[in-house]
Amino acid sequence: MVVAYDGSDFSGFAVQRGQPGVRTVGGVLAHAIGKVLRHEVALTCAGRTDAGVHAWGQVVSFESEPGLDEWRLQSAVNSMLGPEVVVRSCETVAPGFDARHGAVWRRYRYTILNRPVPDPFRDRFVWWLADPLDLGALRLAADVFVGEHDFTTFCRKGPEGSSLTRRVFESRWIDEGDDVLRYEICANAFCWQMVRSIVGTLVEVGSGKRRPGEMMATLRAADRNTAGQLAPPRGLCLWEVGY
Amino acid sequence: MVVAYDGSDFSGFAVQRGQPGVRTVGGVLAHAIGKVLRHEVALTCAGRTDAGVHAWGQVVSFESEPGLDEWRLQSAVNSMLGPEVVVRSCETVAPGFDARHGAVWRRYRYTILNRPVPDPFRDRFVWWLADPLDLGALRLAADVFVGEHDFTTFCRKGPEGSSLTRRVFESRWIDEGDDVLRYEICANAFCWQMVRSIVGTLVEVGSGKRRPGEMMATLRAADRNTAGQLAPPRGLCLWEVGY
Repeated sequence: MVVAYDGSDFSGFAVQRGQPGVRTVGGVLAHAIGKVLRHEVALTCAGRTDAGVHAWGQVVSFESEPGLDEWRLQSAVNSMLGPEVVVRSCETVAPGFDARHGAVWRRYRYTILNRPVPDPFRDRFVWWLADPLDLGALRLAADVFVGEHDFTTFCRKGPEGSSLTRRVFESRWIDEGDDVLRYEICANAFCWQMVRSIVGTLVEVGSGKRRPGEMMATLRAADRNTAGQLAPPRGLCLWEVGY
Repeated sequence: MVVAYDGSDFSGFAVQRGQPGVRTVGGVLAHAIGKVLRHEVALTCAGRTDAGVHAWGQVVSFESEPGLDEWRLQSAVNSMLGPEVVVRSCETVAPGFDARHGAVWRRYRYTILNRPVPDPFRDRFVWWLADPLDLGALRLAADVFVGEHDFTTFCRKGPEGSSLTRRVFESRWIDEGDDVLRYEICANAFCWQMVRSIVGTLVEVGSGKRRPGEMMATLRAADRNTAGQLAPPRGLCLWEVGY
């Protein structure tokens, strides 16, 4: 299934350790699919988005009986979940397909509204910054991330011994007009809070607190204390996943 | 002040009769302005939007002392209200100006998302309709409203003896692409629930339940029972007001 959601009122896609009983996207989705299929399902997802983070192209997989009517399942799940979580498409895949391990790239978008006054219509999906950002500086600094790097500077630690090396295929800023700046990053995989940490640090470049030329040293430092503030989750969206 | 708001979580702009103590846009706005200016203000607005209806260009006026710092007031109010209600601009006007009686036209937009699956990112601001609408039929029927008409068919009754005649300058459907259909109506003034009633009736034309050629008779009937269902408030937005 390809799934879109407004993550504002969810505690992320999956239950985090130490937070049982919270409302998650994966929880409500698995519940709805289970009701329709009349058996419990275990969901695997391409990207475990954090609390407040959105998705347009999250991919989930699960096992079920052969001969599923995909459109009927999609419609029934959508009518149970309402527009907060929407199944955009649904298809049967080969046995052994896994939404997480089969993914070869993930693309995230981060959207900033950069104008003196905020916009109530876009507020749930943007980070509003009143002071003008220097797009040229943002672009110079964003180039640094392309390639294979150890992202220790920009990640919360995972399990002991796990690698924080990732391959970034694309890292760029797009001026969408109408005061909207969008950051797009595409990589084989992401570690925890990586995009928000990168965007938060880039914004410090764009606002003149850091120089673009320092970004390579910050990345190479492999020290989380050299990164900037985390950007808020509201501007982040898991856009597309490739297989 | 020109004010934008996401009306989803408000009981309209102004308190309705018989519903004291509810949260209104006008209430939170007057409270914030009063706090900043340190005196109570009585707000007048160009359009008393209903519960769940949004605005991009609502206009409000109030009296205060001369020598106001408009930008300081706007910033202070915006920082109190957050992005749910936003003052887009603020200026001192001539004595006797009144946002309601001075307005010579109001423009509303109604947005429909017409595709098989809903969109979690636009849900708060659109009416999602899965079955395809006939845009040609919508356009034919929308033409009927241009001109001066008694809108009794499409309005909830106001105070006894008040006129329901309004002059409509523009009534048209715009195909925005990406499965979005937008209805725009501009008139000297609107009566209660007029746009939602018109859109609800037009959608019955677009879905084949009524013929476009019947719309003139429906308007002339001056009978509320001949109108269609009310369109939901979420798709409606007070877009702009002219003086």
